[in-house]
Amino acid sequence: MLYDTYYNGIYTNFDELKLPLTDRSIFFGDGIYDAALCGGGKIFMLDEHIERFISNAKLLNIPLPAEKKQICDVLYSLTPKTAHGTYFLYFQLTRYSARRAHSYDDTSKSNFLVTVSEISLSAPTYTIKLISVPDIRYEMCNIKTLNLLPSVLASKRAAVLGADEAVFCRGDTVTECSHSNIHIIKNGKLKTHPLNARILPGISRKHLLMTANRIGIATDETAFTLDEMKDADEVIVTSTSKLALRASEVDGIKYNTENNTVGAELCRLMRADFDAFVE
Amino acid sequence: MLYDTYYNGIYTNFDELKLPLTDRSIFFGDGIYDAALCGGGKIFMLDEHIERFISNAKLLNIPLPAEKKQICDVLYSLTPKTAHGTYFLYFQLTRYSARRAHSYDDTSKSNFLVTVSEISLSAPTYTIKLISVPDIRYEMCNIKTLNLLPSVLASKRAAVLGADEAVFCRGDTVTECSHSNIHIIKNGKLKTHPLNARILPGISRKHLLMTANRIGIATDETAFTLDEMKDADEVIVTSTSKLALRASEVDGIKYNTENNTVGAELCRLMRADFDAFVE
Repeated sequence: MLYDTYYNGIYTNFDELKLPLTDRSIFFGDGIYDAALCGGGKIFMLDEHIERFISNAKLLNIPLPAEKKQICDVLYSLTPKTAHGTYFLYFQLTRYSARRAHSYDDTSKSNFLVTVSEISLSAPTYTIKLISVPDIRYEMCNIKTLNLLPSVLASKRAAVLGADEAVFCRGDTVTECSHSNIHIIKNGKLKTHPLNARILPGISRKHLLMTANRIGIATDETAFTLDEMKDADEVIVTSTSKLALRASEVDGIKYNTENNTVGAELCRLMRADFDAFVE
Repeated sequence: MLYDTYYNGIYTNFDELKLPLTDRSIFFGDGIYDAALCGGGKIFMLDEHIERFISNAKLLNIPLPAEKKQICDVLYSLTPKTAHGTYFLYFQLTRYSARRAHSYDDTSKSNFLVTVSEISLSAPTYTIKLISVPDIRYEMCNIKTLNLLPSVLASKRAAVLGADEAVFCRGDTVTECSHSNIHIIKNGKLKTHPLNARILPGISRKHLLMTANRIGIATDETAFTLDEMKDADEVIVTSTSKLALRASEVDGIKYNTENNTVGAELCRLMRADFDAFVE
């Protein structure tokens, strides 16, 4: 495939694509998205990503552009077939195209966008710096929508402070990061926020829990506080583009970043799973 | 002016305009907007709308596209000069155009969109039907951003139930509607939610308070509950496109819709102000 972008049946390039002003992403952010890692012509955890995408579309009553099989065919059609390189496959569904009006009708055809770009994965031994910010977001964070302004502002806040990611705190409770889930390890046990409307059901979060179970690390899906996080032995941040990376610090509090810890092993194994898959 | 739409220096028509995929409205809803009523070549309460627009841009750290005077010139350039008709002038500012990344840099040029369309104002005696929905929105409702999905869903819920507008309730407290402010009249006194992060500082809300003061109606900027609203004598909904209209009912509870009430007088006077302005 010579192209890197697809929109409603047309293949083109990212820098050339223009959307009609009527696409409801533009006035309302009225859509959902998902993103997966690719390599060697294959899409990592595709079924999990597609199922979440379909589920999110249903939650917002956005009609699917096609059957699951056809959606996957489009995703594969943009996936580079080369043996080398890792790619970020982004796909977005917006409600439909129409003149600006808050409410919508149920019968119109949704807009399906896909774009792929090369990315560099950080080594699983790489550690990231975190800062905390208040979680002012809506009670719909379980859906991967295009209403991302609080995450944009939190990401910028992190960047301004020289950090890599911002940790959202609702009151004292840590929920997730601006574009990642977050987890702590204390006394060999992994703790992570439970799935509800305040966090995204991350595919890498699920991968982390499966990996922990596989090597006999106890897991506990219970919310934790910022103080608990600062007192943790290790902190792991997961997302599609990071897989799993450990934190070096949060708000200046430093963590153990030795490479023979439980956290290091979990990050190493998740990356090994990806490498084995795309091999 | 033959055109109805403007984007970054180019005049065109709404149905022809296409935005680059890089405009940050598309991936993040990373922008603000405002809207004003026009007639007779004039823009109603322009200074209030422009000041709010500039203030919102500052709150989100989005650079203005030009000085206030030049922004107004663009708005006037799209305002029909005909003596007849009422127009809705919509203007939007998005952070800039770039490849998808949550954080942003501070130096890029923002994208400025303006579009105008004819609308019909409802008579000030017209009444609307309301339903209540939970307010799940973020703590940033004072900024007119493009993250409007909860309002989209609430508007649709109203439409499905045969209502005109949805009233957001945070717990028991009424905040505002999906695209309007809301106010109650009880024993001749007007009550409305105070200005904070949970409601938009509506220009028509301000106009209503000024009008009430002008005719000696006491006003109280204190939050009220859904029960208090159901027990009110009258309910007034204000927005740019409605000016002020009374509710006929909320969740099936009916209100007095006689045309010689305090509420009717307020709605009549606000419309008279607009009519006199565009005369």
